[in-house]
Amino acid sequence: MHLDPIGQIRTGHTSRADTPVQTMLNPDDQGRVVLDEPYRAGLHGLDEFDYAWLLTWLTPDDTDPVPASMRQVPFLLAGSPREIGLFAMRGPRRPNPIGLHLVRIVEIGDDGFGFAGVDMLDGTPLFDVKPYAAQLDAPPGGAVRSGWFDQADLGAPHTPRTLRDRRPRRS
Amino acid sequence: MHLDPIGQIRTGHTSRADTPVQTMLNPDDQGRVVLDEPYRAGLHGLDEFDYAWLLTWLTPDDTDPVPASMRQVPFLLAGSPREIGLFAMRGPRRPNPIGLHLVRIVEIGDDGFGFAGVDMLDGTPLFDVKPYAAQLDAPPGGAVRSGWFDQADLGAPHTPRTLRDRRPRRS
Repeated sequence: MHLDPIGQIRTGHTSRADTPVQTMLNPDDQGRVVLDEPYRAGLHGLDEFDYAWLLTWLTPDDTDPVPASMRQVPFLLAGSPREIGLFAMRGPRRPNPIGLHLVRIVEIGDDGFGFAGVDMLDGTPLFDVKPYAAQLDAPPGGAVRSGWFDQADLGAPHTPRTLRDRRPRRS
Repeated sequence: MHLDPIGQIRTGHTSRADTPVQTMLNPDDQGRVVLDEPYRAGLHGLDEFDYAWLLTWLTPDDTDPVPASMRQVPFLLAGSPREIGLFAMRGPRRPNPIGLHLVRIVEIGDDGFGFAGVDMLDGTPLFDVKPYAAQLDAPPGGAVRSGWFDQADLGAPHTPRTLRDRRPRRS
């Protein structure tokens, strides 16, 4: 199957090592979705939603292993390294590197929209925008188990570089 | 960009018109993710999560307009038809027909996992599995505006066919 971008994402980040991980851990940073002209009419009604999902292409680094390893150490566990199955983590090195980003809609314009919550490189290709609907996108009822995220330090914006610097050093 | 399936989804549904819309509106129906052999090691640790996202290819019908219309009547509004911008709705007729499905993990096996919450055709190609992490996938704080979903009738499993039958008839 083939994907064609419908636009791109503009952010203030140009290196993956210095781009924060996870929009919800970096909620005050702002970016912008810029849609190609044929797709702009699709924004109608999005102003009635507070949040949206962005689906993107997580452009691989030249240094990424091909094929992607099925067990990896998540960036967020770099301080206490532990390998996790790829389908139990959210990192970008995947067989199909599709990014899923929950962002807060800030303002809708003619050619796209501004959003808060940034974990994308500037120029990231965009494939789809879906509105966040509380009725569809949240498990019903109370707390849900979220695996290793339930114990991870998620307190502040992190980047792969700041997380790598926590890595235990061999003496 | 090119996607290669990593497996497929097995469900009890073989026609789009009779397949329920939205996993959270059909939470008791069960399906199964079957991963191709090279990807099965990626399941390690997923048993510690209650929910996961499935990213799929929403195979177009022959009758779908190409290119996809930027304004469409969502299946769920067939009873009181109103056109919505494509990026403010979740339907399958999209420029890049990538499906995003939140499912409850029921049991993990060697070759995949069983899940509850079904809105996919049997044989749907699968591109990615991402764990649902409450810390990353839910807006912080209280109620969020969810546009037309906030007024829609979401009370029971619906299919495109049952919803179409609610359409007002011209006399």
